[in-house]
Amino acid sequence: MSTQINYAAEAATQYIEVNGNNYAYRQFGKKSGIPVIGFQHFTGTLDNWDPIILNGLAAEREVIIFDNTGVGNSSGETPNKVADMTHEAVAFIKALGISQFDVLGFSLGGFIAQYLVQDYPDLVRKLIIVGAAPQGSKVLEEFPQLIGKAMQKTPIERFLFIFFTPSEVSRSKGMATLQRLYARTVDRDQEANEKAIMAQMKAITEWGTDPVTIDLASIKHPVLIIQGSDDEMMDSDNSYLLFKQLPNAVLSYYPDSAHGSFYQYPELFVNQASDFLNNF
Amino acid sequence: MSTQINYAAEAATQYIEVNGNNYAYRQFGKKSGIPVIGFQHFTGTLDNWDPIILNGLAAEREVIIFDNTGVGNSSGETPNKVADMTHEAVAFIKALGISQFDVLGFSLGGFIAQYLVQDYPDLVRKLIIVGAAPQGSKVLEEFPQLIGKAMQKTPIERFLFIFFTPSEVSRSKGMATLQRLYARTVDRDQEANEKAIMAQMKAITEWGTDPVTIDLASIKHPVLIIQGSDDEMMDSDNSYLLFKQLPNAVLSYYPDSAHGSFYQYPELFVNQASDFLNNF
Repeated sequence: MSTQINYAAEAATQYIEVNGNNYAYRQFGKKSGIPVIGFQHFTGTLDNWDPIILNGLAAEREVIIFDNTGVGNSSGETPNKVADMTHEAVAFIKALGISQFDVLGFSLGGFIAQYLVQDYPDLVRKLIIVGAAPQGSKVLEEFPQLIGKAMQKTPIERFLFIFFTPSEVSRSKGMATLQRLYARTVDRDQEANEKAIMAQMKAITEWGTDPVTIDLASIKHPVLIIQGSDDEMMDSDNSYLLFKQLPNAVLSYYPDSAHGSFYQYPELFVNQASDFLNNF
Repeated sequence: MSTQINYAAEAATQYIEVNGNNYAYRQFGKKSGIPVIGFQHFTGTLDNWDPIILNGLAAEREVIIFDNTGVGNSSGETPNKVADMTHEAVAFIKALGISQFDVLGFSLGGFIAQYLVQDYPDLVRKLIIVGAAPQGSKVLEEFPQLIGKAMQKTPIERFLFIFFTPSEVSRSKGMATLQRLYARTVDRDQEANEKAIMAQMKAITEWGTDPVTIDLASIKHPVLIIQGSDDEMMDSDNSYLLFKQLPNAVLSYYPDSAHGSFYQYPELFVNQASDFLNNF
């Protein structure tokens, strides 16, 4: 890894105006046919992607990360529905001139991934879904309470509480992840503001209560599902249920890990994701 | 893969006498610190390992496959208990002068893997368990009936019935697997005889009814669990239960696949297994 280019630290933030909103994004990596586009978690911005993962994926393909409407350095009003977030992301992606891409959807981004492939099947080649759940997963009704509990903690403890397990090993991996997320010192993104956070919270909670409109059984695209053994937010069992409904999915669980499974095992994830995108 | 040595076709069958029994084995691959030893499925012999998997693993490490007591070209009386199969395998392995090894256990071999790591924790470094279930899995009570149903089919249909799903894609991968398993033309192994088969059937069935003596939660070794989406013999859900009990396991499910999940996706398996053995 030492000879890899540190795209995560060096890629400049770029902007493009779409439908009156200014979208912040970073585009980097080895030029290849199909880029992989990252869809970020609740409150996450350009700076919440793990550099090991960005650099690992970018060694073999073009990677694009972006702030969706109203998040981080992107302007506009954050929608409070996953479907609308999906449509606005597609407008941004099309504005970049991209006609087909692979999806890396983390948490909320994994919900958008499911909408994307149903509503825009020709735009998507393959999907990677990390730490997510199918539409209608009851556990998400408890999401506001879980976040409320998290908000009472210090920022570091909040990060560990959400993304890692209480074990010493997992917490130490969490601290290492935090260091990686703050390794980039220039041109950092703004944190999500309260308005964006409230809209996202509504969208995530309603993912659990909305009527199921996504027919997972009809999705023929290759999917790689990644989850931790102990994701309280999504309930880890939900990834198995997602796998069972999708006809062409590979599912992997990582040990002693929570919502941030791929933060905890970034090299394992890069190996799996790259092999999946290259060869599956 | 084209420049790899075809160990699966070329490795000679060797023999070693241990406790009065003559054990057939093949040993090949890149000399490395820790060999990986394959523990075979019900009725399986040296010739039932997928050449893509053997050659793929052997590109980076030493691989040993063997016929346990009374199976294939090995003499002696096949035990009818998984515990005894384990002890006899260990005697064979120690006779080869091996003091630590990685385990690749397929089906019945995945049961032996669980005994091995509990009874001989210092002999084992890492475990790969494919198409297996924890001790006490009720589904195994139905094993004789399932085999009875399989025996009414032609040999090709029997193989597809046990190891693949009824889908066209899975069946065609099954036919390709069969071709690979018969690619070796010289020095082939004898098939398992009826006495060995009956003993193995008793051991497998009792795996489902025996009192649980293996404390999975106490096993700290790294484990990679692989299973197909639709393994009727083991009940695919049992791999998730195995994962949940083991504190340091990675679990992967493959789509539209049955008991022969790693036959169906041999390249995916080699990538995962090699990364796990090298880096996890």
